[in-house]
Amino acid sequence: MARIFYVNGDWLPESEAKVSVLDRGFLMADAIYEVTCVLDGKLVEYANHAARLQRSARELGLRIPLDEAGLLAVHREITARNQLDQGMIYLQLTRGVADRDFAYPPEETPPTLVLFTQAKNVLENHAAEVGISVALLPDLRWGRRDIKTIQLLYPSMAKMEAKSRGADDAWLVEDGHVTEACAASAHIVSAEGALVTRDLSHALLPGITRASVLELAAARGIRIEERAFTPDEAKSAREAFITSATNFVVPVTRIDGVQIGDGRPGDLTRDLRKLYIDTRRAAAV
Amino acid sequence: MARIFYVNGDWLPESEAKVSVLDRGFLMADAIYEVTCVLDGKLVEYANHAARLQRSARELGLRIPLDEAGLLAVHREITARNQLDQGMIYLQLTRGVADRDFAYPPEETPPTLVLFTQAKNVLENHAAEVGISVALLPDLRWGRRDIKTIQLLYPSMAKMEAKSRGADDAWLVEDGHVTEACAASAHIVSAEGALVTRDLSHALLPGITRASVLELAAARGIRIEERAFTPDEAKSAREAFITSATNFVVPVTRIDGVQIGDGRPGDLTRDLRKLYIDTRRAAAV
Repeated sequence: MARIFYVNGDWLPESEAKVSVLDRGFLMADAIYEVTCVLDGKLVEYANHAARLQRSARELGLRIPLDEAGLLAVHREITARNQLDQGMIYLQLTRGVADRDFAYPPEETPPTLVLFTQAKNVLENHAAEVGISVALLPDLRWGRRDIKTIQLLYPSMAKMEAKSRGADDAWLVEDGHVTEACAASAHIVSAEGALVTRDLSHALLPGITRASVLELAAARGIRIEERAFTPDEAKSAREAFITSATNFVVPVTRIDGVQIGDGRPGDLTRDLRKLYIDTRRAAAV
Repeated sequence: MARIFYVNGDWLPESEAKVSVLDRGFLMADAIYEVTCVLDGKLVEYANHAARLQRSARELGLRIPLDEAGLLAVHREITARNQLDQGMIYLQLTRGVADRDFAYPPEETPPTLVLFTQAKNVLENHAAEVGISVALLPDLRWGRRDIKTIQLLYPSMAKMEAKSRGADDAWLVEDGHVTEACAASAHIVSAEGALVTRDLSHALLPGITRASVLELAAARGIRIEERAFTPDEAKSAREAFITSATNFVVPVTRIDGVQIGDGRPGDLTRDLRKLYIDTRRAAAV
């Protein structure tokens, strides 16, 4: 089925979903985005994605052209128009169209809002069964990774470099500590059974799945250590995993070729994946 | 006069110059660019811009869809179609249109090539007469600034922050040393009369005007020191200036509120501006 895109209030077939080449998203990466997972045709963790979008917009002085109800309505409508049962909704907001200038255009410049869907079987995920391997690569991204901008060239380059090294993904390292995966949060389980996750700062994205998994683990009595960890610590961890909106929880079984634990997905990782899916699927709106 | 844009082989009016929302330039900042100055309807330093475009493309594995002659022909044609006497030609190359994925699309994916013009009186520049003021701000850009990518959100933010501080532009500072201006190379003239310019590395763009100005200064017997310099050194410099493709050479007369020299554009700066314009205008193609 051909997809229907949302572009500034219009519903368009994919072939007509276009923006001006003068859009600041295209010319200057002056844009933010969110990816919301869809399960059973419903939005997973929608309120948290909407809140993070608000935060990113506030940090950059971007205006969201719809109010809360309007934004939710567009998410629902794009799900319905594309008969999306499982997959994701991608949303991007830019500072709009203006003659190219490093200075921002006047505040009344209409922002550009685009949404589209990607169907994906997120529940049946082979990687979740067998685990993934990651390569450790330097984190060369900009200094405000807490804002979800479209400056994704480096994560994309790192993904390709990881693949060229025979790995599935990369874990990025800065100043001797892991920051994140290419497009996911990085977690390890220590020998003592604590869940170790980097504390929030400008160095990484405040992951929504990350926050939920920490909450679910804490409720289970797991000790949480929110702090930076080293590549060596990661390689000697009992378990390792990533979290993201459409991967949920996926085990990492090799880091730079080193087997994690017994090389199979860890028990806590499996439990957290199931718990995350069960609770967030039930709470989807 | 309405401008004519070039988009993937088509000549289109501005209102029809569009790209797919799935273009990787729009979704992931997976794109590079060049800005070539036009004087007397001719291209300034064209060969150097074409060479740098090749280099950026090579670093990112991007394919330029035209050969050397074809690229030059498009530059000439867009100048003619827009009757451009003075101003700039902007060129952007992206990895093309593909369903959103951090992994690159197949190599046969057609890249996206866009060009447009901006008329601007580059010879009569008030800032060149009176000088500009700059604010010192942290450099939060990514780690491969030698590649001319469209990841320009931070330079744009820095420009706005500089303006909010009453300055015209920003000089960015990393690890205690100046890297560049928002969209220009930064230079100072030491008390001893040496031209001090940061040495090339991944930290800054290999500026084309920068290279020409160094060459012109050296030919005049000016001592060149290609090395990093500190904000304090800059504030106590005899002269300071920026170089870029459409600004040529513009004096900096205040840095973080501190007057440079006697607060007026320096003699060497003036000489280099004139020399640059005279020689590069004469050599334009």
